[in-house]
Amino acid sequence: MKNLLSMEHLTNEEILHILERARAFENGEGSQLARSYNVANLFFEPSTRTKTSFEMAEHRIGCTVIPFDAGFSSALKGETMYDTVKTLEMIGLDAVVIRAKEDEYYNELLEGINCAVINAGDGAGQHPSQSLLDLYTIQKEFGTFENLKITIVGDISHSRVAKSNAAALTKLGANVRFLCPEEWAGQFEAHHSWDELIHDSDVIMLLRIQHERHSVSKSFSKESYHEQYGLTVEREAQMKDGAIIMHPAPVNRDVEIADELVECERSRIFQQVRNGVFARMAILETILKGRE
Amino acid sequence: MKNLLSMEHLTNEEILHILERARAFENGEGSQLARSYNVANLFFEPSTRTKTSFEMAEHRIGCTVIPFDAGFSSALKGETMYDTVKTLEMIGLDAVVIRAKEDEYYNELLEGINCAVINAGDGAGQHPSQSLLDLYTIQKEFGTFENLKITIVGDISHSRVAKSNAAALTKLGANVRFLCPEEWAGQFEAHHSWDELIHDSDVIMLLRIQHERHSVSKSFSKESYHEQYGLTVEREAQMKDGAIIMHPAPVNRDVEIADELVECERSRIFQQVRNGVFARMAILETILKGRE
Amino acid sequence: MKNLLSMEHLTNEEILHILERARAFENGEGSQLARSYNVANLFFEPSTRTKTSFEMAEHRIGCTVIPFDAGFSSALKGETMYDTVKTLEMIGLDAVVIRAKEDEYYNELLEGINCAVINAGDGAGQHPSQSLLDLYTIQKEFGTFENLKITIVGDISHSRVAKSNAAALTKLGANVRFLCPEEWAGQFEAHHSWDELIHDSDVIMLLRIQHERHSVSKSFSKESYHEQYGLTVEREAQMKDGAIIMHPAPVNRDVEIADELVECERSRIFQQVRNGVFARMAILETILKGRE
Repeated sequence: MKNLLSMEHLTNEEILHILERARAFENGEGSQLARSYNVANLFFEPSTRTKTSFEMAEHRIGCTVIPFDAGFSSALKGETMYDTVKTLEMIGLDAVVIRAKEDEYYNELLEGINCAVINAGDGAGQHPSQSLLDLYTIQKEFGTFENLKITIVGDISHSRVAKSNAAALTKLGANVRFLCPEEWAGQFEAHHSWDELIHDSDVIMLLRIQHERHSVSKSFSKESYHEQYGLTVEREAQMKDGAIIMHPAPVNRDVEIADELVECERSRIFQQVRNGVFARMAILETILKGRE
Repeated sequence: MKNLLSMEHLTNEEILHILERARAFENGEGSQLARSYNVANLFFEPSTRTKTSFEMAEHRIGCTVIPFDAGFSSALKGETMYDTVKTLEMIGLDAVVIRAKEDEYYNELLEGINCAVINAGDGAGQHPSQSLLDLYTIQKEFGTFENLKITIVGDISHSRVAKSNAAALTKLGANVRFLCPEEWAGQFEAHHSWDELIHDSDVIMLLRIQHERHSVSKSFSKESYHEQYGLTVEREAQMKDGAIIMHPAPVNRDVEIADELVECERSRIFQQVRNGVFARMAILETILKGRE
Repeated sequence: MKNLLSMEHLTNEEILHILERARAFENGEGSQLARSYNVANLFFEPSTRTKTSFEMAEHRIGCTVIPFDAGFSSALKGETMYDTVKTLEMIGLDAVVIRAKEDEYYNELLEGINCAVINAGDGAGQHPSQSLLDLYTIQKEFGTFENLKITIVGDISHSRVAKSNAAALTKLGANVRFLCPEEWAGQFEAHHSWDELIHDSDVIMLLRIQHERHSVSKSFSKESYHEQYGLTVEREAQMKDGAIIMHPAPVNRDVEIADELVECERSRIFQQVRNGVFARMAILETILKGRE
């Protein structure tokens, strides 16, 4: 593993190795890297948790983080992604973590770039580090992925998380179902009612309504979305024993999920954030070690 | 002391402890913290000196500063302050330093948050770290607060500094007077002329005219403000021996104070900046130690 | 050398000393500084490579970098450059690296400021650290500057790089020629055709068309600029053996230079970026050591 671009490039073995290293880090093990590496985080879209989570992970495995202010960079002068990353490589960066608006922006970086590239989200494409922390959260809970019933709810067609997770979970043996309004199903076959899904789901994975990308919907107000597709207090009461709630956050309270459920017993929403640091330490370590 | 939210929450003993630790730091003493802590600075409003001062203080007491770009964060996606801070806590932050537009934003953070919260300015509310550095500056100069005549000049009603300082100084035994145009007195009883105040003030504490919050005044140009309420060269000449001039900065030269007085012998304006690093080291140490 | 403001202030000895230290750093030598220094980078204009290059250089010579977000600072509140820098000095900064829109902004800082000032670009003025890395790149290639034929191409009159380099190279014995449209020659005497220059140039130094400062030209489209003044594949074929191509970047591909030449054998464009870190380590070390 020389880069992390898309979940589709990862074998089950690679995924399970990263989860194992995440667990080792959570148990207090140190990094296996031979030296300190220089890393920069290039976030061309707003983010709190992903960027800060990577910063913390980098710090914890002994990397030096060289600040890069994407909102104020030469990209504003029309520089290509290739030239920006090549420049950072020549400055001495060993790895760059990138979030960008363009789907598969990393295709530009496959040739001629020698520093490691970690995709922290590409447009409406993939978000593999989020996917790996989600997998880690599920594995911690259930020990396995085999035959788990996992329901992904929301704007499937625009969600990086949905696409990354659906591919990976299926490959690992889980049974993935989708719930969303007709117009948001995209290429996927989706359910349109909670009735068939709420009772037997092991994991309910809510997606964020992305105000940035489009308004909730022409056909839905926030209130009517919550009523039809949100996880209400009534629906949570119908979930089976041991089932958990996940959300990549930031949460729109009372839209995707009722305000009072965000920190309820079933919710792993803030645990996911905590797990994210361990997953990202594992990602960075695996990639940097693979280049030693 | 688990957090620093408002000067009103501090006892005189807590204030004097912080000033004592600030003095120890200025004298070259090291931090008494048992380990390195992770800190983030969340500045949702522009600031040079406060943010940079905290960054330096954090560095000097051995903290790791995890960068957080408030102008580019999930707050833009409508995330609540609670969710932002809870997220940072789960990522592993031990303390967050926050400046925000909303008065008493920290009320949201009193329950459910386990990391330390340090208020670096809330709307038109309080600015306790500025207040503590002002107190430290006065204590260094006079050794005591008892019976000092302290004149605060400017937009009292909108000033975080005025409110924090007036409360604390009065509690510590000083005699605080206000000077401002009628419309800026707010809840306070104010003088409207320098005549009764210029000769016997030990400290003249000028406030910044806050262009960001409102124009100087409908009734005043910058020139006429300077003439009526500014510290002119003529007025400085009437100050008593040993009296000092303070200003939280940034200074509007020739508005609050004549350009040539900014670095005059009586001025402690840049000394305040220097003292601020020691005061903030003391604040951070006291709060983090109180949680060990 | 207490500051680095403009190439015009440097003697040949000072320049050659910096190049020698850059080479030592490239060869793996460590810094000669007695302690760790605190440095801030104040970039009031967008930049990737210069800011990141300074950050890396500061890190490599053991400095502590205190973050400063110029786009979000008190300068927005109308603070003068003097007051901003004086404040940073009082906070404990030993050196500040500044890029600003105003020509010779540093004149304000010549009196009363005790921390070191390193000019990272002033308006349409100078860009001395870029110039020093260019000189280092040329020296590495040719061993000397004497009698080298160096052709600078582009918007001479608005280019910080052109001005800094022309002055320094001439002083060091090189023969500098300019090529540009009539309207961009400014105070310089320029050629208007490649014909007299392409065959005997040792160095072709292309300048960036600065979209930020003005549109390409009223009289030129990007295509016609490329045709008349750009380095095309045909022109590169006429360059003499051993001649090299330089560009301060970011490159406008197919405007100043044909896309396929950016990483051709003659090109030193990305090598310049790499050399920039060594040159900046040398600059910082020389200035901080000069103050010990």
